[in-house]
Amino acid sequence: MLVVMQAHATEEQVKEVCKRIEGFGLKAHPIPGSIRTAIGITGNSGAIDIGTLESLPGVVECIPVSKPYKLVSRDVKEEDTVVRIPIPSGEVTVGGKAIVMVAGPCAVESEAQVMAIAEQIAKTGVRLFRGGAYKPRTSPYSFQGLGEPGLKILAKVRERFGLGIVTEAIDNESLDLVEQYADVIQIGARNMQNFSLLKRAGRARKTVLLKRGMSATLDEFLMAAEYILSEGNYNVILCERGVRTFADHSRNTLDLTIVPAVKKRSHLPIVVDPSHGTGRRHKVLPLSLAAVAAGADGLLVEVHHEPDKALSDGMQSILPEEFRLLAEEVRQIAAVVHRTMN
Amino acid sequence: MLVVMQAHATEEQVKEVCKRIEGFGLKAHPIPGSIRTAIGITGNSGAIDIGTLESLPGVVECIPVSKPYKLVSRDVKEEDTVVRIPIPSGEVTVGGKAIVMVAGPCAVESEAQVMAIAEQIAKTGVRLFRGGAYKPRTSPYSFQGLGEPGLKILAKVRERFGLGIVTEAIDNESLDLVEQYADVIQIGARNMQNFSLLKRAGRARKTVLLKRGMSATLDEFLMAAEYILSEGNYNVILCERGVRTFADHSRNTLDLTIVPAVKKRSHLPIVVDPSHGTGRRHKVLPLSLAAVAAGADGLLVEVHHEPDKALSDGMQSILPEEFRLLAEEVRQIAAVVHRTMN
Amino acid sequence: MLVVMQAHATEEQVKEVCKRIEGFGLKAHPIPGSIRTAIGITGNSGAIDIGTLESLPGVVECIPVSKPYKLVSRDVKEEDTVVRIPIPSGEVTVGGKAIVMVAGPCAVESEAQVMAIAEQIAKTGVRLFRGGAYKPRTSPYSFQGLGEPGLKILAKVRERFGLGIVTEAIDNESLDLVEQYADVIQIGARNMQNFSLLKRAGRARKTVLLKRGMSATLDEFLMAAEYILSEGNYNVILCERGVRTFADHSRNTLDLTIVPAVKKRSHLPIVVDPSHGTGRRHKVLPLSLAAVAAGADGLLVEVHHEPDKALSDGMQSILPEEFRLLAEEVRQIAAVVHRTMN
Amino acid sequence: MLVVMQAHATEEQVKEVCKRIEGFGLKAHPIPGSIRTAIGITGNSGAIDIGTLESLPGVVECIPVSKPYKLVSRDVKEEDTVVRIPIPSGEVTVGGKAIVMVAGPCAVESEAQVMAIAEQIAKTGVRLFRGGAYKPRTSPYSFQGLGEPGLKILAKVRERFGLGIVTEAIDNESLDLVEQYADVIQIGARNMQNFSLLKRAGRARKTVLLKRGMSATLDEFLMAAEYILSEGNYNVILCERGVRTFADHSRNTLDLTIVPAVKKRSHLPIVVDPSHGTGRRHKVLPLSLAAVAAGADGLLVEVHHEPDKALSDGMQSILPEEFRLLAEEVRQIAAVVHRTMN
Repeated sequence: MLVVMQAHATEEQVKEVCKRIEGFGLKAHPIPGSIRTAIGITGNSGAIDIGTLESLPGVVECIPVSKPYKLVSRDVKEEDTVVRIPIPSGEVTVGGKAIVMVAGPCAVESEAQVMAIAEQIAKTGVRLFRGGAYKPRTSPYSFQGLGEPGLKILAKVRERFGLGIVTEAIDNESLDLVEQYADVIQIGARNMQNFSLLKRAGRARKTVLLKRGMSATLDEFLMAAEYILSEGNYNVILCERGVRTFADHSRNTLDLTIVPAVKKRSHLPIVVDPSHGTGRRHKVLPLSLAAVAAGADGLLVEVHHEPDKALSDGMQSILPEEFRLLAEEVRQIAAVVHRTMN
Repeated sequence: MLVVMQAHATEEQVKEVCKRIEGFGLKAHPIPGSIRTAIGITGNSGAIDIGTLESLPGVVECIPVSKPYKLVSRDVKEEDTVVRIPIPSGEVTVGGKAIVMVAGPCAVESEAQVMAIAEQIAKTGVRLFRGGAYKPRTSPYSFQGLGEPGLKILAKVRERFGLGIVTEAIDNESLDLVEQYADVIQIGARNMQNFSLLKRAGRARKTVLLKRGMSATLDEFLMAAEYILSEGNYNVILCERGVRTFADHSRNTLDLTIVPAVKKRSHLPIVVDPSHGTGRRHKVLPLSLAAVAAGADGLLVEVHHEPDKALSDGMQSILPEEFRLLAEEVRQIAAVVHRTMN
Repeated sequence: MLVVMQAHATEEQVKEVCKRIEGFGLKAHPIPGSIRTAIGITGNSGAIDIGTLESLPGVVECIPVSKPYKLVSRDVKEEDTVVRIPIPSGEVTVGGKAIVMVAGPCAVESEAQVMAIAEQIAKTGVRLFRGGAYKPRTSPYSFQGLGEPGLKILAKVRERFGLGIVTEAIDNESLDLVEQYADVIQIGARNMQNFSLLKRAGRARKTVLLKRGMSATLDEFLMAAEYILSEGNYNVILCERGVRTFADHSRNTLDLTIVPAVKKRSHLPIVVDPSHGTGRRHKVLPLSLAAVAAGADGLLVEVHHEPDKALSDGMQSILPEEFRLLAEEVRQIAAVVHRTMN
Repeated sequence: MLVVMQAHATEEQVKEVCKRIEGFGLKAHPIPGSIRTAIGITGNSGAIDIGTLESLPGVVECIPVSKPYKLVSRDVKEEDTVVRIPIPSGEVTVGGKAIVMVAGPCAVESEAQVMAIAEQIAKTGVRLFRGGAYKPRTSPYSFQGLGEPGLKILAKVRERFGLGIVTEAIDNESLDLVEQYADVIQIGARNMQNFSLLKRAGRARKTVLLKRGMSATLDEFLMAAEYILSEGNYNVILCERGVRTFADHSRNTLDLTIVPAVKKRSHLPIVVDPSHGTGRRHKVLPLSLAAVAAGADGLLVEVHHEPDKALSDGMQSILPEEFRLLAEEVRQIAAVVHRTMN
């Protein structure tokens, strides 16, 4: 924390701020400048809200300096985390040299639909299958997912095709079930700061895929992951899926600069969801390639064999044959950035 | 829904789109213009995602027309909803002529703290007390609230001062308890799209105060309320508390234009939280007055007797004596806009 | 400027950064903390881009501390600036006790239109008239304003009704003319960072009304004003007119928290434009009252006697009789916040 | 334009709206739905602001349907525009199969600096050189560029290395000079809606590179280009350089989804500036690759031989040897997306 004093702050006022800082059990370091004085603070345990210094006379503002996250930080662990996901047909790694592909429909609609799509996806060599049994929908009148029966359908996909399952939990109850049936527990963007759910996910023994909230800063995103790690679960994959801005030409604004930004601050792997990130089918291919070129560790892509009949997000789903093409081009981009495909 | 065709779309393409629309069991209304054709759609039940029309040849875009909310809409109920909250000392109404004031500390820290603040607030004539026993915090290492013991302290405030209690629930478990101890269940901004929690709140028999999410549009805000109403709970109060923008001179950007916008679309009452909305003590008074001038039905204000020692949000809390002044000026502003004070 | 080092930065790296800082002719102040070291910098003249320190080994980030503005800052001039505008019927002051009202049509369309509106506005006691002769329009095919003939019409309003004239300049050429005909030169939001125009306005001998850019931070807004002051023109009025956000229920998001924020940082007066700020007629009255309640020094309101026929921005214009009501309610709000009306 | 009526709007109200529409010389097409009526409008010339319909009784809102741009639209010209720029050593094309690279320092600081950088860039095979002689800077106290002497230095680069010159004009005066000395006239983000400058650029006989404004929507961006085309200059290259959002981990949020969005709506080429788009050196390489993977027609990259001493934007400049590596990887990405390098 750094306290910036006004240009005309008196020596008395500087002293008073220092005294207050020391009253918190911290150490004050005044730095007199040519125009104004700033006061550095060290020893901050994070437990005290010293921002209240801002209301003392002579103070302009308080600037936080230390980043509040610990376990997710590269400061604590320099080498990249490689998350290992055991699946029926072996093991999938995320965050190593290989790019991971996760594909499947937005929602589990029926066994027939899921099996048809899974069969085609399995053929492309992809090893993680996604599909929602619990769907957070803006409207209470929209399809809310099949619930546990949906999870059972996904378990059949797992068994028949050897694919690992990635599916979303929306509350503690559904997380209990998802943990049972799936290989990766997805926490959606709208729940990124559902701290009760994050803590529960931190106590799960499965990998967690954490989506960035619609208006989450990098710090908030990493702090949400910190909640999971702080409960003992270190197998966390971050996922950029677009943020909300004024721009109206895409459903969300896919923020690919967060990929190198995460890599600089944290050791956790990060994948990109270009389907939600763009919201339109014709943008999924170009932005998938862009994500991998930007350094993402993988992609989450919505694939539907009949997108026009999808119960949700049909507009952003691509066909299995389009996905095959996408996977092929991603493989080539991966090679340029010295990566392979899972 | 309106489908806009390209200027050079062929008659064939227009026909194909109409055919597809009718395939969904809907009715297509082509409107030939001088430059291009648009196709209106009626009969949409909302269950089908017809946005996939956008990928048909010749289509430029699909524009949603009907608003998806029903129960919260003025279309359905023209007159203002007046929420009635029974409290020990009588009844508080929200949404009628009287402006409602809700005041108290950000977090319940101890019985001594809460009692000290409540005593002073009770003296100002305010009848609803706020204070968090469950605190959603960005960091897992920040104070997370006292939990049920905190609710018990609030219950004592209720008993001793006759104040109604407004406090936040963060998951289904805490909502069970909050419903028992409090008069109004608050759903925080980070949980505005925690649909599982919204549904549970919809089954509660207490009034719900729903805060706007940090990047929620008006439609999403109203749809979140719709979740609660659709489960049978019609006692919902909306709350604007600032949204996230690029602006960095305040913690959030308080969006007061949403007040008349809500009034136009919905019959539900809306209050404003200038403490979270601005994040700084010196902005709380001016923005409180502004909120009431803009037509808000009430205010939620953080008051702390020792803001410098607050365990959370001290920077935005005001002193009880400042609150007294605020309440007095709010009373005068209320008179100008033909309102009274509760 | 503060340089934050990594937790595991070596002493060598800290020394290297200090050396580099001193190489810029500045002074380095290392502050060793329990987790990491931060390095304060003093003596920064602002001319050197020391942000490049961020790419040195061991550095996490560089945090700017000193605000770059000087002449507009309260640090330099503690008391409020009161801008005095001589008009035919006396003098209008902005930034003192009195709230200033500026009213008129968006665009000067014809002499008949302007005279009809001006007559009604003059009757309400308002003393500053607004109307655009040069209109920055998103489309080249929209009405671009009458140009100099429009200015001549405004000059007639000045003469006949004794009103001061506020009108926009969009480039150096139009500023030459506006300076001749008008009393206040308006710089529009889209030109807030047209630095060539700001410098020219700084050399003008008339008051400048500077609108906040659509995505301008407080610092950028004040720096734009600094451009004008730095050329010798100290008569600057700031104007909040709404910023661009994701919110789609209003044309712009009116950011009233900037009013107390400006008052804290700067001595310059600030007025609010609720017409552009909200973009809808039914929001103009509530937000006008809110702006004055929040501490604004005045209002800029679009008034049109036939808004349905306006060549631009009809949707946000109010009728003269609505304006009269608005002025009356503003007067009452002003009294509550210890202000008067001009 | 589509007018959406309230659910309980009377037949009278619908008729009144239709009458009003026809009063504008337009045609009304009522579309009765099961819940509400919508009214399509055709024949809109764009000259009339029919949004005022929104204030009529029974109207919920007016939704614009037709896009207002004409000359820039794919509706008008289906095939991609290929801009041809004659340079001393031949011709550079933008928008065809070849990816174009534009490299050079942010600002022209001295002849020695520019020559040193240009020599290295010329060696990489790049044929367009960038560098600013006029610098729009947030602060009046920052380096504002060398002006005409800077243009003369760029002319020497042109002569000695056969490179085409891309440089910014900030007002009509500087545009006159830039047109004389340079091959491509750059309009910066802050001037994207400086319509006076756009019109002047539309009368220039050199190619214009138009940067997207910091908070410009796709429509506004294309309309700004429309200003240039409408004056007769069809040689326009669009440039995405990041937009302003709440995200604070990069200087701007680079919005790569606009690349396929522009390609869908317009025939104009679009390049990406990853230096301003990210603001940090370590993000320039990954986002450059991402931009080309997303379908951009080229890149604008800041290169400086001594970034630590740069007078502006040193933090986002890369070294000539880093640029060589970047160009090599871009070449490989280009091949994957079936493009070549200029």
